[in-house]
Amino acid sequence: MSNTFGRILRFTSFGESHGKAVGGILDGMPAGIEVDFDSIRRQLQRRRPGQSALTTSRQEDDEPVFLSGIFEGKTLGTPIAFLIENTNTRSSDYDHLKNTFRPSHADFTYEKKYGLRDWRGGGRASARETAARIVAGTLARQIIPGIDIKAYVHAVGPLHLNKNWTDLDLSKIDSNPVRTPDPEMALAFEKLIAETKKRGDTVGGQIVCVVQNLPVGLGEPVFDKLHARLASAMMSIPAVKAFEIGSGFAGTEMFGSEHNDVFRSDGSTETNYSGGIQGGISNGMPVYFRVGFKPVSTLMRPQKGFDKEGNAVVIEGKGRHDPCVVPRAVPIVEAMAALVLADFYLLNKISRIE
Amino acid sequence: MSNTFGRILRFTSFGESHGKAVGGILDGMPAGIEVDFDSIRRQLQRRRPGQSALTTSRQEDDEPVFLSGIFEGKTLGTPIAFLIENTNTRSSDYDHLKNTFRPSHADFTYEKKYGLRDWRGGGRASARETAARIVAGTLARQIIPGIDIKAYVHAVGPLHLNKNWTDLDLSKIDSNPVRTPDPEMALAFEKLIAETKKRGDTVGGQIVCVVQNLPVGLGEPVFDKLHARLASAMMSIPAVKAFEIGSGFAGTEMFGSEHNDVFRSDGSTETNYSGGIQGGISNGMPVYFRVGFKPVSTLMRPQKGFDKEGNAVVIEGKGRHDPCVVPRAVPIVEAMAALVLADFYLLNKISRIE
Amino acid sequence: MSNTFGRILRFTSFGESHGKAVGGILDGMPAGIEVDFDSIRRQLQRRRPGQSALTTSRQEDDEPVFLSGIFEGKTLGTPIAFLIENTNTRSSDYDHLKNTFRPSHADFTYEKKYGLRDWRGGGRASARETAARIVAGTLARQIIPGIDIKAYVHAVGPLHLNKNWTDLDLSKIDSNPVRTPDPEMALAFEKLIAETKKRGDTVGGQIVCVVQNLPVGLGEPVFDKLHARLASAMMSIPAVKAFEIGSGFAGTEMFGSEHNDVFRSDGSTETNYSGGIQGGISNGMPVYFRVGFKPVSTLMRPQKGFDKEGNAVVIEGKGRHDPCVVPRAVPIVEAMAALVLADFYLLNKISRIE
Amino acid sequence: MSNTFGRILRFTSFGESHGKAVGGILDGMPAGIEVDFDSIRRQLQRRRPGQSALTTSRQEDDEPVFLSGIFEGKTLGTPIAFLIENTNTRSSDYDHLKNTFRPSHADFTYEKKYGLRDWRGGGRASARETAARIVAGTLARQIIPGIDIKAYVHAVGPLHLNKNWTDLDLSKIDSNPVRTPDPEMALAFEKLIAETKKRGDTVGGQIVCVVQNLPVGLGEPVFDKLHARLASAMMSIPAVKAFEIGSGFAGTEMFGSEHNDVFRSDGSTETNYSGGIQGGISNGMPVYFRVGFKPVSTLMRPQKGFDKEGNAVVIEGKGRHDPCVVPRAVPIVEAMAALVLADFYLLNKISRIE
Repeated sequence: MSNTFGRILRFTSFGESHGKAVGGILDGMPAGIEVDFDSIRRQLQRRRPGQSALTTSRQEDDEPVFLSGIFEGKTLGTPIAFLIENTNTRSSDYDHLKNTFRPSHADFTYEKKYGLRDWRGGGRASARETAARIVAGTLARQIIPGIDIKAYVHAVGPLHLNKNWTDLDLSKIDSNPVRTPDPEMALAFEKLIAETKKRGDTVGGQIVCVVQNLPVGLGEPVFDKLHARLASAMMSIPAVKAFEIGSGFAGTEMFGSEHNDVFRSDGSTETNYSGGIQGGISNGMPVYFRVGFKPVSTLMRPQKGFDKEGNAVVIEGKGRHDPCVVPRAVPIVEAMAALVLADFYLLNKISRIE
Repeated sequence: MSNTFGRILRFTSFGESHGKAVGGILDGMPAGIEVDFDSIRRQLQRRRPGQSALTTSRQEDDEPVFLSGIFEGKTLGTPIAFLIENTNTRSSDYDHLKNTFRPSHADFTYEKKYGLRDWRGGGRASARETAARIVAGTLARQIIPGIDIKAYVHAVGPLHLNKNWTDLDLSKIDSNPVRTPDPEMALAFEKLIAETKKRGDTVGGQIVCVVQNLPVGLGEPVFDKLHARLASAMMSIPAVKAFEIGSGFAGTEMFGSEHNDVFRSDGSTETNYSGGIQGGISNGMPVYFRVGFKPVSTLMRPQKGFDKEGNAVVIEGKGRHDPCVVPRAVPIVEAMAALVLADFYLLNKISRIE
Repeated sequence: MSNTFGRILRFTSFGESHGKAVGGILDGMPAGIEVDFDSIRRQLQRRRPGQSALTTSRQEDDEPVFLSGIFEGKTLGTPIAFLIENTNTRSSDYDHLKNTFRPSHADFTYEKKYGLRDWRGGGRASARETAARIVAGTLARQIIPGIDIKAYVHAVGPLHLNKNWTDLDLSKIDSNPVRTPDPEMALAFEKLIAETKKRGDTVGGQIVCVVQNLPVGLGEPVFDKLHARLASAMMSIPAVKAFEIGSGFAGTEMFGSEHNDVFRSDGSTETNYSGGIQGGISNGMPVYFRVGFKPVSTLMRPQKGFDKEGNAVVIEGKGRHDPCVVPRAVPIVEAMAALVLADFYLLNKISRIE
Repeated sequence: MSNTFGRILRFTSFGESHGKAVGGILDGMPAGIEVDFDSIRRQLQRRRPGQSALTTSRQEDDEPVFLSGIFEGKTLGTPIAFLIENTNTRSSDYDHLKNTFRPSHADFTYEKKYGLRDWRGGGRASARETAARIVAGTLARQIIPGIDIKAYVHAVGPLHLNKNWTDLDLSKIDSNPVRTPDPEMALAFEKLIAETKKRGDTVGGQIVCVVQNLPVGLGEPVFDKLHARLASAMMSIPAVKAFEIGSGFAGTEMFGSEHNDVFRSDGSTETNYSGGIQGGISNGMPVYFRVGFKPVSTLMRPQKGFDKEGNAVVIEGKGRHDPCVVPRAVPIVEAMAALVLADFYLLNKISRIE
């Protein structure tokens, strides 16, 4: 049930961390789109483990194999199936977890829900599945002409950018391994991550995502508001615990007379507390939102665990894990945003009789 | 497309603010449940306009009429359709808005998306539709035996409770019109709302919701994580701009060694930063989340608007509006939570072979 | 689950035969369509009980009340909810059925599935719900410009028209109460129905439906072939037991060299054994199909029944029932065809990048 | 949109005939089921091309590769992805079809719908995709304890078995390459197919499917009647043009007094014209239905075709094709039936409160 995302552009995902492959099927992709394979590879590189000292040392080529739906470089209108092999799996790293539940992991809940689980590398609950989202999301991004989706790291632990996205040069996002458009803060973020890693600890962080050149009219009334679907998309990313659109929690402290976005005569607004969405529907202004990630649960130092028999055990991460997920999560946030936006873009084409 | 919520317990909603009625169809409700009509009426009362000096003076009886799916007081297993008439509509209050777009309202986006709109009282974008959600959500709540869902006002504008939900007496929520379990802060909240109203202004706020006695195993991997669906449910409520589960944004500032919830030998955890969910699946601990509402856009004082011809116009609210939505939004948050939880409760019954 | 039909044009139906009302919500209807209320009323009249000596004497006005989604005569793009009151219910006719299962009715299966049932007038299993389908289907029909959907009675019991639809004058369908475009056979059909009624018996029949002016490209590969969805739509109508598209069962006896439809240079075909569909997708030729209805189960004479305690009982229909459903089923077949076709028409608009 | 089948047990299919692979993802499979790989292989063998002189000479091993969702031989409750490589593709056989539309094929409709197509071996419209259905359907079959699904060839061209399924020994179905439980007719069927093949022609046929040991209560009211979903499942199989349940078209010629299935005191019925379904819900009696297949469109002799420029061309099949599909379609009918039944079996578990 849970492994399909989208209404008419539908992505169905599969895969366990140490199974043969992760991948999925993207159904509903319109025919005739020239697939930008380079862009898919580039985005996979941004997510790839082992890309810098800040990330896990698991090495995966993450080369997607397309099985269907593309012919002579163009989409056929039929389902696009693809897989990414799991090559660099060291399942033996996880042998000690067979009967053990790690704190704040999905071990316990999967075991209770299903009665069994693939305990190798987190199984289905591993963030490894997000590689497939990158492929689907990058395909989806091609549906909306001229769309510009850019995510960046806004905070690492207690350190935050003290600038709004409008005051940042978003072309600089990839100029540093943390993926933040503020070069000074990038150094501070890197330093904090490095220190945290050294201690065998992990740290949380935040990502801001900005969507520009989005047409007016995307999103649907009531349950499928654009920001409701964005929220659901972001909260489905492993480790995400918080989401806000536009003014977000800060906006809850304001008065209506401050918060209302006054129109200019061309339909744009002077401020953008709404985050580009009114009544659940895009209004043509930039859409921006913030996503909060908790610290990774696997520590490279001893922790108290719990085994199937209810005994306390001491566990220590042996797999390869990130001290902070946000640098690698940047392309995942973009991919999930693209899936939401492309779905609504297609739906919007049939919302009225011309 | 957008007007159905849920996977197997599916609620389809209808209605414009000044049309004949709002209502909906709840499909997938199991047969044989004795319907608690009192509880439905009570929850509608909590949402009803005109219930206190803090709310709009629009008076609606909000008496639901059940059209199907219930026989001799019990659910039949067939769709439960119901409607709530719109009796106290003063459409003439809105005549001046026919050709005008109010700031931070859905007027502009609906017009652009659909090419026409019901401009009376906000039409489909009015929070009037949430009355139907109360009915559906209260029915859904009956599916999960022993479930305890309690929401309360946590903040009004810049004023916040400085206590965690675990330090509050949740039985006091309805002891004051603001619906907050802290009697002292209730007075401060009321005062702020009254002052804001006097100025013709509005103010935002926050609601916390706590779910206790939830079984282990609710929620699905990857896209349908329990908190992803809760986020989507909450963000679909009018005026909501922010959502966080468990430790939320504050948790992003923490280290893994602080944030991990260590197990007790019975499977419960010593802390609950996870908010009762690991890997998207409930773990048996209380689920709690926070929801942020922006200030209402309709002000009872002059604002700059914009008409269809692109001319600036001055508009002033004439309808009846709330200076702050959070007191009335408390039962809506509970209703939407119930719809999510009951859906997952049913799904979970078929997640494994016994 | 089961009460929604369609992918993006979605109709959710509700209602028991002797409840307050039947009706539904049509979601996904594009905005800006001028609703043809006359056509809805006309189609309801064609389905209405009591319209001629051939049908049940239950009298229902069947006047639909629209609750939402229409403003100043046009569709808003929001859900269109409507209801049709059940006014002429004589539930006491059914008192004797409270504990009894009638042969070939849904009494037994509903009781076993749900543990309880609304035994009055067949409850949810009554064909009364098809009134709602007429409303939704007639709205759907307005989506496809120029579409021409015509159904007619092809057979009553063992009597069949011996002409193909291409040899009939389809403008004559409503010239007789049986709704068959062959005036001579109409008399024979009427006579057979009248005789059957006199005996307190019932008889089956067949309906042919022809769709002209359908665009090329409707239908989807693999599971959502146009004829698969038409089959499902037709088989969902009460009493339907058989469906065939184009050459149907007769075509199974042919050789490929006879059956293949050779192209003309304009893309049309010389023959049309395919029934206007190739590979599940409309090819621009007329789509035609045949639907088989079993005889109504309720007889106006004694039958052997069965009660909850497993005792044999004698039952005899006291409600008001049709001796043959096909004359009234003609508009239902058309309505369900329209729902399928309009859904695919909308989907097809986003099947490729222009 | 179209490539997913099922409500809670959902199969999403992918693949073109001459692409890298066909396959799919089965989502919603309960956890803890020991996968019967032998049975999957056996069913694939029954569908495999090249298995006898009656079928195409294309040779495919059709060995499924499982990518996810199974761990130590058991289902995990996560999506089961699998692929079957397309090894024996001779795309050059199809070079001449690049710009040509074959009569009664999907060439023309795909080209018009999508603006491009994979012309090699029929692309997505090839029956090659049914191999994936076999895998999914055989997995689904394991969900319902004790279920017995048996399909067999009932007719080849004008030759029909003159016995009802109740008078046949269904254990004999695989005793001959035509897959018919009547040894005498098997010879006649074989002879007709061989003669047809010799002439470069093709011939249609019919399959009957019988389901025994099905629990009471499967199927849903109104749109998702058990036979509506079976019809849709069967009509989605390539070349199928007709479907009937129980008494089918023959039943339309009967009177109610003959057709009604009188109950025995144990809830079973003396006759079974209903085909085991009343009001769309299984009643515990055997479910049986008949499926009609048109003759294959590809002939091994010259036919009139049509090219993109609208010129008449002569085409002749060069690929490897079956003269009659029904022997190989037997396991496909069973697989699709299993997908429908298992989906309803799971749904039925939550239709009432125990």
